Amino acid sequence: MATITKRTEDYSQWYLDIIQGAGLAENADVRGCMVIKPHGYAIWEKMQRALDRMFKDTGHVNAYFPLFIPKSFLAREEEMAAGFAKECAVVTHYRLKASPGHGIEVDPEAKLTEELVVRPTSETIIWNTYKNWIQSYRDLPLLINQWCNVVRWEMRTRLFLRTAEFLWQEGHTAHASQKEAEEEAHKILEVYRSFAEDWMAMPVLTGPKSEGQKFPGAVYTLCIEALMQDGKALQAGTSHFLGQNFAKAFDVKFQNQAGQLEYAWATSWGVSTRLIGGLIMTHSDDSGLVLPPRLAPIHVVIVPIYRKAEEKQSVLAAASRLADALRSQPLGPWLNYEPIVVKVDDREQYQPGFKFNEWELKGVPVRVELGPKDLANNACVLARRDLPGKEAKEMGVPLAGAPERIVALLQAMQKDLFERARKFRDARTSEAGSYEEFKQRIEEQGGFVWAHWDGTRETEELIARETAATIRCIPFHRKKSPGKCMVTGKPSEGMVVFAKAY
Amino acid sequence: MATITKRTEDYSQWYLDIIQGAGLAENADVRGCMVIKPHGYAIWEKMQRALDRMFKDTGHVNAYFPLFIPKSFLAREEEMAAGFAKECAVVTHYRLKASPGHGIEVDPEAKLTEELVVRPTSETIIWNTYKNWIQSYRDLPLLINQWCNVVRWEMRTRLFLRTAEFLWQEGHTAHASQKEAEEEAHKILEVYRSFAEDWMAMPVLTGPKSEGQKFPGAVYTLCIEALMQDGKALQAGTSHFLGQNFAKAFDVKFQNQAGQLEYAWATSWGVSTRLIGGLIMTHSDDSGLVLPPRLAPIHVVIVPIYRKAEEKQSVLAAASRLADALRSQPLGPWLNYEPIVVKVDDREQYQPGFKFNEWELKGVPVRVELGPKDLANNACVLARRDLPGKEAKEMGVPLAGAPERIVALLQAMQKDLFERARKFRDARTSEAGSYEEFKQRIEEQGGFVWAHWDGTRETEELIARETAATIRCIPFHRKKSPGKCMVTGKPSEGMVVFAKAY
Repeated sequence: MATITKRTEDYSQWYLDIIQGAGLAENADVRGCMVIKPHGYAIWEKMQRALDRMFKDTGHVNAYFPLFIPKSFLAREEEMAAGFAKECAVVTHYRLKASPGHGIEVDPEAKLTEELVVRPTSETIIWNTYKNWIQSYRDLPLLINQWCNVVRWEMRTRLFLRTAEFLWQEGHTAHASQKEAEEEAHKILEVYRSFAEDWMAMPVLTGPKSEGQKFPGAVYTLCIEALMQDGKALQAGTSHFLGQNFAKAFDVKFQNQAGQLEYAWATSWGVSTRLIGGLIMTHSDDSGLVLPPRLAPIHVVIVPIYRKAEEKQSVLAAASRLADALRSQPLGPWLNYEPIVVKVDDREQYQPGFKFNEWELKGVPVRVELGPKDLANNACVLARRDLPGKEAKEMGVPLAGAPERIVALLQAMQKDLFERARKFRDARTSEAGSYEEFKQRIEEQGGFVWAHWDGTRETEELIARETAATIRCIPFHRKKSPGKCMVTGKPSEGMVVFAKAY
Repeated sequence: MATITKRTEDYSQWYLDIIQGAGLAENADVRGCMVIKPHGYAIWEKMQRALDRMFKDTGHVNAYFPLFIPKSFLAREEEMAAGFAKECAVVTHYRLKASPGHGIEVDPEAKLTEELVVRPTSETIIWNTYKNWIQSYRDLPLLINQWCNVVRWEMRTRLFLRTAEFLWQEGHTAHASQKEAEEEAHKILEVYRSFAEDWMAMPVLTGPKSEGQKFPGAVYTLCIEALMQDGKALQAGTSHFLGQNFAKAFDVKFQNQAGQLEYAWATSWGVSTRLIGGLIMTHSDDSGLVLPPRLAPIHVVIVPIYRKAEEKQSVLAAASRLADALRSQPLGPWLNYEPIVVKVDDREQYQPGFKFNEWELKGVPVRVELGPKDLANNACVLARRDLPGKEAKEMGVPLAGAPERIVALLQAMQKDLFERARKFRDARTSEAGSYEEFKQRIEEQGGFVWAHWDGTRETEELIARETAATIRCIPFHRKKSPGKCMVTGKPSEGMVVFAKAY
């Protein structure tokens, strides 16, 4: 069984230990890339299902655009070219050939006339396509999402949080008016907030990024921003209002209702497998992964306990009956209309204690212990993953009522995990009256720090250089009480939120 | 509205017209790549859901492996290197840079020490990973599937059937014994057969490929093979028994129960977006796409018909009630536990006739027409997509019983489409007693042609050169009645199936 480094000892190692111990992912033998292992991928599938339903419920459809982008497309939108050119995988040839004695080599004869970039994000190839799809206001809005892989050549990688290749969804919408496009950007941010809070049980701040932190090519970027257990922030999702930038770069005009030609208005938005990193760092503990029930690939594990052969049969039969009863609980929106997933761990070669530890490590929300003594009382023992030691256990739960009790526990756990994370976040959120105080807070306790800032990129960059903290968000809910920038003393229209970030 | 070329006039153009008219896909401005449009992608999602459930029901889990494969990995398995080297996209650089006056260019300083190939298939990267996952027989079997994109640099492309990038699933399993691995390869072929016949309503032959047609690196390849309406065959899915080839190439040994080190046994198997091409060419007609109900993104379209304002309200209300009643039909395995998808086409700017044509073009299985006269009789008109003209219509169907009647029609249509395709396939299947007869059949009527063959690659290649027909399959159900090869006169142990193929 894997040993997990304590969070207090070495937070980075703890994170990697959880990923390894729970079997979520590993570094591939390809620079910067990861292998997402079955348990990690199952969490991603849960996330995809929930998000995909939310996108479709808000009128979006899925499509698929090419992996490759001609180099010249990227060059068309200046900020995008500047923002992504430095981290692109470039395809230059389309063939290998046998090299006597040396295996295979690139065939110099098969050089592409124009190099192709592996998509770091798809605005350019998609707007090049939209050009042919949009002629009239009747063709609008286009509300399209894509699930795919993207590549950004990161030099310092970290499983889930920053890898050369990652999986994500990217929405790309086109609208007939600025107002409608801006409403779309806000609507999607609300989808992201709801997913983060209601599904991941991860509280988030919502609001625009500062000019210095926005997406290359966007007019403005909205974000959801979470706080990890080590006091560092995680940008968990972004929704961009792109104005007419891409329509102009790719000449996408439509005839409006007044019969005039106008450039289309755009948004784009995405969340990625990075969310799995956020999920781990929000809830997990020194015993392993902790998963909110709505995203757990396995909700309940039943561990049958017996010594004698005659006990085995009756214990396994009772375990199987309970599993069936759980699986046939009514479907509902709370589990995305999917049944409760139950695993009966009847492996002969391991002891119950070993099994308890293993399923704790993997983050299964509820464990059922079922032995001959329990069975004699028509009862079982329940243990929820998110509470420590004895607090977690409910003894002598009548088998007849166990399915309903387990559903109640799962729902309570979903709620409690969010509340606990919110309390943690709030406790690690502070205000700094002066730059000295700011530096001290960032250095000593981390977390979100509210402070006044003069609104300039220069000041933001200076603060980043001196403290490594950046503006994470200008929250929608901030009080607009004017003050003075903690660094320059110039006017500030309200505090913004700083933190060190992943 | 798009005009569809008649199949009898120009089959290739008909195929492209259907794809364009139904909004399924288009060629991208990136050589050989396609854009899968929302309606086409929705069909792929339906396919994915059904297949994914079948894979999981047979014990498989999903995972994700890197897009990039170091060139040297590909070189390790000789047949694979030879088979795929000629069609690989090769990444040689990881950065672009600004080029004054010329936009952006590849940064020569950012050359990779070892080139990366964009995966054409993932055996090599996966077996390189399995090396670390497999130590003991207790780690086996590994039953893993991956949904992803792959790239094979095809020179002559055709939407869905052959494109440089396509989407697929690839299963990669590792086993402790040859027997178990071979059983797996057969089990998956049965999943593919069931999916093709029970979901796509596309009858298939099943059996091994000839040595000349097998997958590079496989010991043998099993396939499902379908017949399109123009008499050409389509390889629709393959399941490979890989023996110990990849275990040897990547040194994947495990300790067996006897305590000895042994190489692991492997399978791999895949189906791709090519299936959408097969679906189109199996069922569609000169009015547009025809979809089997189990894979239709929209099952029922209700077209309300009215002239006067006072009719509008009652007709729309009745349409909405019928839609709700359809959506709340009991869920079941036949639609993958998903509700019936109903569209009420209440667009004001189009006439009913236009709408009928449009939904026919898009392949919606059942159309409901609902006007004031129908409503006065508490009835509606049903039209199924797969029957011609008046045959398709049921007049005066009582509204109260309409949901049940529609479900019955959908189920009948699923069955009828399969039967019709099977009859077509059987009618286009023949036996050739001599090579002359064979050439004539292949040339004049196409279809599947059974013939005796001496089992050698040389003869197969000669036949292919002379007739463009290849051995599609050595069907499991063939009669093993010996004969003489139609070309060489050498002994043959039974007939095999030839055809021209996509």
